[in-house]
Amino acid sequence: MQTTETTQRIVLASRPVGAPTLENFRLEELPIGQPGPGQMLLRTLWLSLDPYMRGRMSDAPSYAKPVGIGDVMEGGTVSEVLTSNAPRFAKGDIVVGRTGWQTYALSDGSGLQKVDPGRAPISAALGVLGMPGMTAYVGLLEIGKPAVGETVVVAAASGAVGSVVGQIARIKGARAVGIAGGPDKCRFVIEKLGFDACIDHRAPDLAARLASACPKGIDVYFENVGGAVFEAVFPLLNPFARIPVCGLISMYNATSLSPGPILLPHLMRAILTKRLTFRGFIVSDFAARYGDFVRDVSAWVGERRIKYREDIVEGLENTPRALIGLLRGENFGKLLVRVAPAST
Amino acid sequence: MQTTETTQRIVLASRPVGAPTLENFRLEELPIGQPGPGQMLLRTLWLSLDPYMRGRMSDAPSYAKPVGIGDVMEGGTVSEVLTSNAPRFAKGDIVVGRTGWQTYALSDGSGLQKVDPGRAPISAALGVLGMPGMTAYVGLLEIGKPAVGETVVVAAASGAVGSVVGQIARIKGARAVGIAGGPDKCRFVIEKLGFDACIDHRAPDLAARLASACPKGIDVYFENVGGAVFEAVFPLLNPFARIPVCGLISMYNATSLSPGPILLPHLMRAILTKRLTFRGFIVSDFAARYGDFVRDVSAWVGERRIKYREDIVEGLENTPRALIGLLRGENFGKLLVRVAPAST
Repeated sequence: MQTTETTQRIVLASRPVGAPTLENFRLEELPIGQPGPGQMLLRTLWLSLDPYMRGRMSDAPSYAKPVGIGDVMEGGTVSEVLTSNAPRFAKGDIVVGRTGWQTYALSDGSGLQKVDPGRAPISAALGVLGMPGMTAYVGLLEIGKPAVGETVVVAAASGAVGSVVGQIARIKGARAVGIAGGPDKCRFVIEKLGFDACIDHRAPDLAARLASACPKGIDVYFENVGGAVFEAVFPLLNPFARIPVCGLISMYNATSLSPGPILLPHLMRAILTKRLTFRGFIVSDFAARYGDFVRDVSAWVGERRIKYREDIVEGLENTPRALIGLLRGENFGKLLVRVAPAST
Repeated sequence: MQTTETTQRIVLASRPVGAPTLENFRLEELPIGQPGPGQMLLRTLWLSLDPYMRGRMSDAPSYAKPVGIGDVMEGGTVSEVLTSNAPRFAKGDIVVGRTGWQTYALSDGSGLQKVDPGRAPISAALGVLGMPGMTAYVGLLEIGKPAVGETVVVAAASGAVGSVVGQIARIKGARAVGIAGGPDKCRFVIEKLGFDACIDHRAPDLAARLASACPKGIDVYFENVGGAVFEAVFPLLNPFARIPVCGLISMYNATSLSPGPILLPHLMRAILTKRLTFRGFIVSDFAARYGDFVRDVSAWVGERRIKYREDIVEGLENTPRALIGLLRGENFGKLLVRVAPAST
């Protein structure tokens, strides 16, 4: 048993004002608890870092309740079962769940799923075969509904969600146009992921370059950034365009909301005259589609029709810095923390 | 034949800047043409006045092309067939179509439907059993999708569309809350149309009074006005609320769009965190539902579960003034011009 060992965890020390800083987090070390009846001890192998975490650090009203001050930061994890008193799980099992920013966790198994290490690398359960992949799948197919020959635009196109959105759009016969930060990411999006085009939002004349990459306008805009990218997209939206609203990462660190050039009446007028659909969603709204998602995306990954890239940070202690970087677009691919190597 | 008679028509003389004035219209008188092979001569009995007409007077991009300067103003009509060389129609038939602001029209029958005078007063073909009724039906049922016990809010609640929205919401088991201009309209909406509540948007504290009329928040907001009413609705929208965007009458006369208190980022954040759906539509997008609409709404009107009120203006020459009043909310019920009495 591990009772003489210690577990490390990162708690929310204070709520950020604007961009998070290292001072908003605190690393704690404490003894590992003993699993009680029905419980298991898990060792965290992989921790997923995702933009939604910025929302959990704030106490502004949202769809989920915030992390409390002094509480362990939330996060999706892939873990190894070290000891189990839980009937569904055995020592050595690999499980995916939401055990947070810590090296060990006790769990009664609720909310955990077994991961089959034979199907794909286990870290994929936090990316293409996990929450980000399913977010892309349901947002694009349930709300975006791309038709053959339509144009789908997605920002953060090299990231965990955007990369899957564009590749599924291509599978469905649509034209996929990505937006990403910098020439390396854009090259990757076109050459490795097979998008039809990719626009660097850091270069000048975003609107003009996006327009020339979308000669027939935009039918689906998968919104996960907001801000300047939305402003470039807005005039290009075609009649009957669908806008799944998945995230607004450009606003997450904002301390005040700037009016920007597009006013509410402009948007409402465009919704009316172009018959646009804007619809917000979170992945759990479509939990009923989980089986379809696993079936389809597993097959597409197996056929190499969906590719993915991971950006791996070593060690729990580097997690705060990695999240801060994610919110600045510094990651390149699905951002993961390797918390520990698997013992197998 | 009527060839020695004259027809009167109202053409667009100039494009309005802001609210239309009488100078934007011109009444013309010219000889009635002779119907050629396959054509009919129609006498206009009823002309419908509707908010969308303001859009046709402008050349700003929209879903329909504008009326040209010097062209007859567009509009839905109920007419009597005076002479017919068209196979589908006979002298004496009553037809509904879009023959515009004129006392007589030649037509080859395209776009015309026969009206059964035995089913309802023929003017209903321009209101509850016509385009406004169908707009309410498809917008509420295809986009709003009210569930039993949900709260549906609609502005212009005594008007042609809003009155039907609220009554169908009640039929579907939802709570209907209207917004209307002045105590007389509000009394009518509650006492005659059977809404659960109605708020006078001309009285102070609109937001507070709307909030107390919607103690469980708003699940469907049928948008046809925009502006201050939307601002009062916005904070009350529940998670998963649906907003069919049908019209924005408060903005139609605007020469510039004011930023207002709700900024685009506020709206996008609410769409995301509350998973709202905003969807613009026009009635012709749902033409496939026409048969269902006629079946359902005819039955509901027959059962007195849907009631309606007409606001009748006499004489084509009074049409411009009536449209100007409509855009100021001066009508009370479906606004119609009685152009001529039926000869039958």
